[in-house]
Amino acid sequence: MSLELFKTLSIKNESKIVFLVIDGLGGAPHGQYEYKTELEASQHPNLDQIAKEALCGLAVPVDYGVTPGSGPGHLALFGYDPVKYLIGRGILEVLGLGMKITPNDLSFRGNFATITKDGIVVDRRAGRISSEETKRLIEKIQNNIKQINNVEIILKPGKEHRFAGVFRHPDLSEEITENDPHKEGNRPHKIQPITDSKKASFTAEVVETFIEKTAELLKDEPKANYILLRGFSKYPNIPTMQQIYKLTPVAIAVYPMYKGLAQIVGMEIIDGCETIKDEIEKLKQLYEKDYDFYYVHIKDTDKLGEDGNFEGKVKKIEEIDKLIPEILSLSPDVLVITADHSTPSVTKGHSWHPVPVAIWSKKVPTPKNNVKRFTEEEFSKGILGTIYMTKILPLAMAYAGKFDKYGA
Amino acid sequence: MSLELFKTLSIKNESKIVFLVIDGLGGAPHGQYEYKTELEASQHPNLDQIAKEALCGLAVPVDYGVTPGSGPGHLALFGYDPVKYLIGRGILEVLGLGMKITPNDLSFRGNFATITKDGIVVDRRAGRISSEETKRLIEKIQNNIKQINNVEIILKPGKEHRFAGVFRHPDLSEEITENDPHKEGNRPHKIQPITDSKKASFTAEVVETFIEKTAELLKDEPKANYILLRGFSKYPNIPTMQQIYKLTPVAIAVYPMYKGLAQIVGMEIIDGCETIKDEIEKLKQLYEKDYDFYYVHIKDTDKLGEDGNFEGKVKKIEEIDKLIPEILSLSPDVLVITADHSTPSVTKGHSWHPVPVAIWSKKVPTPKNNVKRFTEEEFSKGILGTIYMTKILPLAMAYAGKFDKYGA
Repeated sequence: MSLELFKTLSIKNESKIVFLVIDGLGGAPHGQYEYKTELEASQHPNLDQIAKEALCGLAVPVDYGVTPGSGPGHLALFGYDPVKYLIGRGILEVLGLGMKITPNDLSFRGNFATITKDGIVVDRRAGRISSEETKRLIEKIQNNIKQINNVEIILKPGKEHRFAGVFRHPDLSEEITENDPHKEGNRPHKIQPITDSKKASFTAEVVETFIEKTAELLKDEPKANYILLRGFSKYPNIPTMQQIYKLTPVAIAVYPMYKGLAQIVGMEIIDGCETIKDEIEKLKQLYEKDYDFYYVHIKDTDKLGEDGNFEGKVKKIEEIDKLIPEILSLSPDVLVITADHSTPSVTKGHSWHPVPVAIWSKKVPTPKNNVKRFTEEEFSKGILGTIYMTKILPLAMAYAGKFDKYGA
Repeated sequence: MSLELFKTLSIKNESKIVFLVIDGLGGAPHGQYEYKTELEASQHPNLDQIAKEALCGLAVPVDYGVTPGSGPGHLALFGYDPVKYLIGRGILEVLGLGMKITPNDLSFRGNFATITKDGIVVDRRAGRISSEETKRLIEKIQNNIKQINNVEIILKPGKEHRFAGVFRHPDLSEEITENDPHKEGNRPHKIQPITDSKKASFTAEVVETFIEKTAELLKDEPKANYILLRGFSKYPNIPTMQQIYKLTPVAIAVYPMYKGLAQIVGMEIIDGCETIKDEIEKLKQLYEKDYDFYYVHIKDTDKLGEDGNFEGKVKKIEEIDKLIPEILSLSPDVLVITADHSTPSVTKGHSWHPVPVAIWSKKVPTPKNNVKRFTEEEFSKGILGTIYMTKILPLAMAYAGKFDKYGA
């Protein structure tokens, strides 16, 4: 069903949905640990109790065999087709660095590079200069170049040679080429419009001027004397969760990228959380307020999976498990516990494995599973079966009584 | 696969499919009955025997979390995408009152209302006048206004202040606005064309004239002195089951709406059934005739679910179970037993829960399930898995040998 149709079904009511996303929760069998997954190797009695009471199954984030980035995984969780609504690399980079973006922004990511006097790129990463060095250079550029043709330029340093930024103006377009030659020994490309729209040629001119001015400014730097810009992306044209689902959603997260993704789909963003405990405390404080959708994002499981730290991820799951009763003490109408993708320690990165999903409902009891534990294999026997991740939110809406009947 | 492709696959043969739709059969756990569903709480040895022998699974009527009306549920059962083919409110109302419709008809539903001398709607339901009163008023209108500009007008009274009707003429359009102001204290809207097609402006003119003439006729009625018309809908442009599946289908149902839905997809309609027993008798009588698809609709389970009558629905399931051997005695090539949607007594209405589906086949034995009982949870373990409802009919076609190979 399309978002347009969901819009016609959704109803505003008093029910509250808590949507707990344990990033990278799903795992895969690890040969060094009796071929168990992290969920199988950990003790998590509270999650198991949820599993016994909830509608359980597995969710495929984007499609079978497809490993999602955090953007597509989260869009799918929030009910958006992650193939139709792709969030550009530039935007994710900008959000990841904690910058706020507006609908007038053209986001991008950049590298410092080394170029010869003859204009040949000899190092696309400027010898991987330190983050401190990048910070100094970004300040230097930002202090000298604040705008070009009334287009405001806002930059932020990242790790090592990386940075990101936005061009801010109502007439910008993402339909321009990049200047990164992608191979050393080549000249940087000139930024050019891809279409013959006025906005595209205006944007290409501004960006090219910015690159030239920056090169002039950096010409005496020993390594980082040039910039390569990629991933130009406009603010995505995504209908908000208010528009589609009539929800009043709020996001509780530690990391900027997840706050940014939530902001794009219309959530109010809560700042000031540093730990998982902070997040649960914040959830409790906000529970009496007029929100009806609480997105809570837990990052650590994903990081430990990416590090290949099986035992660390097992311990983190056990730690999170102890916080579940605190969420249940709020007596949410619907509690969803799932992940945006799997991050098995054995593969040390995001993976395509379907993630466990539990939809627990207070008002309308969910059908009985024969599921005893909160693990991938047990959830494959759940009555929900294996579904696409975009189906989770509509089910949560239905159990919260927030969907009207379709057709007479 | 699209209906156009199914059309190229379907073959006419001697096999007969009996398609038993037990309306609202699926349930949900009920807290007052040990968290059992109606199917779990009832004894139905014949359905259980079918479950052991059939291809079993669960069917999602429209989409996850979406509660279907009877229209979308039935279209999905008959193999039509219920999002692509939506049947208008006016048509369902007209069919529900037992009127026959033709491709020239513009259907609508109406209310009697109370309007002041100054033209303000003060009661959109005319004080909920009795059904008898509505019957009298409809006769009065019908006796005085039979046609306008050669457009025939046929009306039928409904319950309380409600009625329905059709405008009959080849040049009508559903692209017109409604006159219901939706809020008391407002003037009724004028009927206007939505597009600039000739048909739309002709239709708007005829409907507006009808409303004015009726108002003139009713001006001395104490309460019901105006009519509000909504849900204008043309006969849907749906290819028939004969065209797509080369079937010769027949519908055995008690209630008019289901006969109407069946008529729209090309089924022959059998009248004269008052009870489930009548329907099974009729099935037996017709079984030797040249039909090859027998749609049998049982309504009572849905009504009892809507009333929240758990025990009544349990007893009704047990009663229906006793009739299964009579159907099997006909030795159908394929017997499908399913529902158009769930109607859990606990939610007292249609719901989004997937419905059990059993496809029993005589000629080609179905794969062995490990399913022991005809219940939602058992069926979630069936070898068919959870499918979209539109997939049921193609499977029945396949087991009946009515689908050719696709591609060489």
